[in-house]
Order: sequence, then structure tokens, then C-alpha cells
Amino acid sequence: MAGEAVSAFVPGHVTGFFAVHDGETPMTTGSVGGGITLADGVTVTVRAGERETYLDDTSAPIAPVERIREVLDLDATVLVESALPPGCGFGVSGAATLGTALAAAESFDLEYSENELISLAHGAEVRAGTGLGDVVAQAHGGMVLRTEPGAPGEGELDGISARETVEYLAMDELSTADVLDGDTDALSEFGQQSLQIVQSEPTVETFMRASRRFAREAELLTQPVIEAIQEANEAGGDAAMAMLGETVFCLGTGLTDAGYDAERTEIDPAGASLCR
Amino acid sequence: MAGEAVSAFVPGHVTGFFAVHDGETPMTTGSVGGGITLADGVTVTVRAGERETYLDDTSAPIAPVERIREVLDLDATVLVESALPPGCGFGVSGAATLGTALAAAESFDLEYSENELISLAHGAEVRAGTGLGDVVAQAHGGMVLRTEPGAPGEGELDGISARETVEYLAMDELSTADVLDGDTDALSEFGQQSLQIVQSEPTVETFMRASRRFAREAELLTQPVIEAIQEANEAGGDAAMAMLGETVFCLGTGLTDAGYDAERTEIDPAGASLCR
Repeated sequence: MAGEAVSAFVPGHVTGFFAVHDGETPMTTGSVGGGITLADGVTVTVRAGERETYLDDTSAPIAPVERIREVLDLDATVLVESALPPGCGFGVSGAATLGTALAAAESFDLEYSENELISLAHGAEVRAGTGLGDVVAQAHGGMVLRTEPGAPGEGELDGISARETVEYLAMDELSTADVLDGDTDALSEFGQQSLQIVQSEPTVETFMRASRRFAREAELLTQPVIEAIQEANEAGGDAAMAMLGETVFCLGTGLTDAGYDAERTEIDPAGASLCR
Repeated sequence: MAGEAVSAFVPGHVTGFFAVHDGETPMTTGSVGGGITLADGVTVTVRAGERETYLDDTSAPIAPVERIREVLDLDATVLVESALPPGCGFGVSGAATLGTALAAAESFDLEYSENELISLAHGAEVRAGTGLGDVVAQAHGGMVLRTEPGAPGEGELDGISARETVEYLAMDELSTADVLDGDTDALSEFGQQSLQIVQSEPTVETFMRASRRFAREAELLTQPVIEAIQEANEAGGDAAMAMLGETVFCLGTGLTDAGYDAERTEIDPAGASLCR
């Protein structure tokens, strides 16, 4: 029945390094870089109803989600449940957007392929200014390298096979807009270098080292982040900063071993999918 | 420790329709078409040891697996456990090959990206003549459209979001080599048409209809397959023939509802990954 409640799960996504690419269209605009998708993520339920969006039971419009509903012209209610805090670099808006596209297409029997739905969500994020590369990584899953920017058909992805516990600690928000509205040329130069380093030696260790290098060179580190990374690594973890939040992510259990009250999850191997 | 036992899971893959593409190299050779990955699949364990391959505890060389071990030059034992019968159109050789590449890279700390490992496995299958498109679909997961042929970077994939129970019934083997060694021009013409139909209307129902149409036009149906498809569909299922085996796959429970002793699984949403 068209309009029945359908849910989709989309993993969270922490970016370790990135470079901004302004294309001619939202489909060719995006970022290259590297990130890790998390088994902690966002579940989105779409069903026929008022055109409203709820984030964890509170009515809360999410710009790119509203855009999806508008483009598809659906009388649908969107319920977003997030295991991750918004604004801290976990790709919550991208997850909500991609989840809305996937669940809406299934609920309303729309004739869109997966790449078309991912493109729709990527474009909505770019237009809303809420993200540049989360959606394509979240659709893919795993430890993701975004080697060419943009939506499916334009961008290209690769990955590094990894089976790891991941801990994360969200200390405060950072405004994506504030950073991206500034001059991003230097930042993007460092991001491109980090990507090249990881592509030439695609291992988990190199990925994390390149992420730390990026945060340092792009001068995005804050004192609490520096301390948490250092202590987690001294405790045997492998930690870096999530772009863009005052957030630390760590492979292994270094954050809790160092005494931090961090959350624990694992790398999501699957990417976004409809819930059964 | 390099050489420790590492396992990877790779979903099975039934192809509904396909067209052969002979490229200049194994990387550009492959097929376009459509298939479904299955939560029933193959688990491959690689560890340091004699250069032997075991299929469900029996020593059994698998040509593309041997090729992977040779190319990587590893003193490694490969243990393949399959929930699916070989030779019946479930992509068991592709799964064994991709699983070997993924697990070997992790076990021996090799510096290969995911796309590089998928390419390695795709190339080994093409050279061994055991498959043309299973590996890339199995890496992706879901209901997969292979829209451009070849390894990652050459080929392109799309998908159709689907959350479905799948039943399958393997009645007999069909020789992939016998079919592919014949004149495949007409078959490929039909496969290309089926792909276009599904791309213009990417829904689960169209996918299955295009698969039935392909098997009929390519004259690959056998009497037992025709009967099983018809009876499963009359029982409310949505069935087609797996390329290339005397095998029927069915969305929903139509095969068992029609009285067949079929296996039941679901669409694999994740694609191949290392086991934790």
C-alpha cells in the first residue's frame, strides 16, 4: 500500500580529512577525502501524513529533508531517530536525508534506482549547505575514500577493508558553515595531500595518521581535542578528530581506556539500507 | 600477526539477465546485467600454511582462487565454506575468489584498497573463465544492476532498494562454459534490452519480469524450470531462472507455497566484508 510506514537505516559518518570541490552543479559539487561509517546511525521512517519532520519525537524541520519531500511532492511524515548528536561531525543531516529518500521511494512505490536516490540526497545536502560528502559515503559503508567528488556517476569511491571497534567522544559543536564559508583553499590543499598519502598506502594506520595530520595542518584542533587524542593514543588507541565537530573518534578502546566517557560502536560494513 | 586466520563473508549472487562484454583486458572485460545477492553465501578463511584450498573440508583447487594466491605470492591455506551448491548459478567461485582476496589482504597486512582487491578478484575470474560479473555485484550487495562492464574504475553499478525474502531451488548444474563458448551475440542483445527495460523503470517487479523475459528469449529455460517458475508465481511468488544453472529463484515464499523443497534466505544488503 503506497504510504505505508517504511524505515531505512543510515550509518553515521565521521570524516578524517577532506578537500572541497565546487562544481558547476550540485551533482558535480562535493568533496574528496576519507571517513569512517559507524554502526551507530540514524533510522528514518516515512509514512503518509502531514508534511512534518520529527527528530527524536520533536518537530524539527531539517532543510535537506524538507527539500527531498518537496522534490518528490509527497504528503509524508518523516520520523528521524538518531543515535548520534547533530552538529558534531557525525553526518546526521546526510543520514536523515538519504534515509528519507530511500524510505520514501519504497513507501510510495517510486521508480528510482539506488543511484538516483543517492544523487537526490547528495544534491539536497549540497543545496542546503549541510554537507558535501557524507551521503555518498553513508550509502557505501565501511572505511570510505572519496576519490572523486560528487554524486554517483560523477564521484568515485574506494575503501579500506577494516573490522574495528570505534569509540567516539562528542565534546562540542563546530559550525560547518563557519569553516566552509571561510577560505578553504589551504584546507583543501592539505585534504588532497592526505588523500594521496592514503591512496599510495591504503591501510587503516595510514588513514588515521593522515587524519591527524590534516586536522593539525588545517589548524582545526582545539585544546580538548588535542588532549583526548593524545591520551587515547597513549592508552593504545588510534584517534583523530572528526570533521567538523569538537569530536574525537578512535579505533580500538583508547578513549575509554584513558578514562573518557566515550561511546563505543564499530565500523558499519554495509552502508544504508531499508529495514526489514 | 601476519598470517593469522582471517575470514571474509561474500554473499551468493544469482543473475537474472546479462550481456557479455569482451574487453581488451580482464579489467574491461565482464558483463552488464542484473542480479540479486543472497544472505546465504560463502565464508572464506585465509591463514599462513600450505598452498592448499579446501571447499567444505575437501581439498579442491578453485582456479581463480589459486590465481589470487599466486599473484599475491602467499604461503597460505584457503578454507572455503559454502552455503550454496557450486555450478548452479550462485556465484560460488566468484565469492570464493573475492573472499580470498579480502581475507588474504587483511591476514598478511597487504597494502591494497578495496577496489584493488575487487579488481584482482574480478580479473582472476575472467582469466579463469569462471565468471564475468559476480565479483563486482557481490562486493556491492543488494539487488544489483551492472550498468557498465568490468572491474571498479571501469565498470559501473546501480541498484534497486529491496527488502525481500528470497527462495531458491537448485535442480541441476548448467555449464557456464558451454553457454558462453557458443555464439552469445543474440543472448547479449536480449540481455542489453532487459537492462534497458529495468533502467527505465527500476522496480523489483520490472527486474523479475525482465529476468523471465531474458531466460525465455535466450532459450535457456528447461521444462523443470518452466514448471517451477509457473507454479511459484501461481502461489503468489515472483520467480525467474538463475544464470547459469538449472536453478529457480523467487521473491517471497512462492516455491515452498507451491510445495517445492526450496531454501529460504533474504536479499543481502551489505555486500562482501571481513568477519569480526
